[in-house]
Amino acid sequence: MKKIGALHVLTDTVLQSRHTHAELARMAVAGGADAVQYRQKSGDTRGMIETARAMCDICAESGVPLIVNDRVDVALAVEADGVHLGQDDFPVALARNILGAGRIIGVSAGNLDEARQGIVDGADYVGFGPIFPTGSKSDAGEAQGLEVLADFARAVRAPVIAIGGIGAHNAAGVMRSGAHGIAVISAVCCQADPEAATRNLVKLIGASGIRDQDD
Amino acid sequence: MKKIGALHVLTDTVLQSRHTHAELARMAVAGGADAVQYRQKSGDTRGMIETARAMCDICAESGVPLIVNDRVDVALAVEADGVHLGQDDFPVALARNILGAGRIIGVSAGNLDEARQGIVDGADYVGFGPIFPTGSKSDAGEAQGLEVLADFARAVRAPVIAIGGIGAHNAAGVMRSGAHGIAVISAVCCQADPEAATRNLVKLIGASGIRDQDD
Repeated sequence: MKKIGALHVLTDTVLQSRHTHAELARMAVAGGADAVQYRQKSGDTRGMIETARAMCDICAESGVPLIVNDRVDVALAVEADGVHLGQDDFPVALARNILGAGRIIGVSAGNLDEARQGIVDGADYVGFGPIFPTGSKSDAGEAQGLEVLADFARAVRAPVIAIGGIGAHNAAGVMRSGAHGIAVISAVCCQADPEAATRNLVKLIGASGIRDQDD
Repeated sequence: MKKIGALHVLTDTVLQSRHTHAELARMAVAGGADAVQYRQKSGDTRGMIETARAMCDICAESGVPLIVNDRVDVALAVEADGVHLGQDDFPVALARNILGAGRIIGVSAGNLDEARQGIVDGADYVGFGPIFPTGSKSDAGEAQGLEVLADFARAVRAPVIAIGGIGAHNAAGVMRSGAHGIAVISAVCCQADPEAATRNLVKLIGASGIRDQDD
């Protein structure tokens, strides 16, 4: 049974440049994140593979899955635990064929149709958002809000990971709206102390009471 | 036996924007190119796969191999005939593992050590250059010239595809220096009539007398 984490920390070196992807992975894991996603949209492939390999090693020490955003080739090269695929990324069905049944595949969905197709194609979880307005992704679209999230989570037969504008001030509300977990970028990467920020989010997710059901 | 073409046309939509990758592939094939390489260094993966699929269909009609630059994931998605890998791209040995023995793998080498390592790792041919000064690649390095090419081609136990500043005015000299073939970007893509430019290069390669040996 693949375990889909409750706190997905997406590493980012565009919104901030104090920490590398590997440093962020180390801090996220130390703070208790149970999934780390490597997201890098430009740069040479060899460099991405080196970065992903370092992150894989860090995550493996703590048994935390490393999920690579979009780049199935990079995931294959480092034998990452999974990939996360947006609607403009590598197609889910092809990724499942190439990666096999054992790896985690997440799909970003902006609506129920995209979620259902993603699950049919082989996705293990569905990323949904943006829940709140966000500055982390320029093409994120309009905020969906907690009521739409609740309807979405009820309708989708897979764990829903909420994303977009989520941080310490609203994480508990997101969890109570039916999300299996949350994905964050700035709420960890752009904080003064990313490890402490992670630890705080883990505590808030735990305190929301939702995660007790399947932990 | 994998056949490594003598005229590799690299499609490009950065140096010119009149033609799409697929249009360039069609013109190159119509003009007699015996290898087409899809090279796109930025953009979303889904779009790259769609482009590569269109190019694959065009090339397959004429039995011309489509080679994808760098992106092993895109090559896998469209079952392309091969990949071409630079020193900053996906590693050759991993690519060979993932793609299997049947696909063409080319490696860019700037010196004999890189060429030998690439061949040990599983490359079928070696791209070598720049032979002449070129404006097509900003990081191409210093021109090697025909004498260095001749020494290189004698020393390397794989077909050498020369690249960099090659066009109708110097193609025959490159072939006579021991290259198995040439790779061109602007000499086709940036010409008024890419199909006619391809046809002319094919004729020059044939007239050089070198290709008769294994055709």
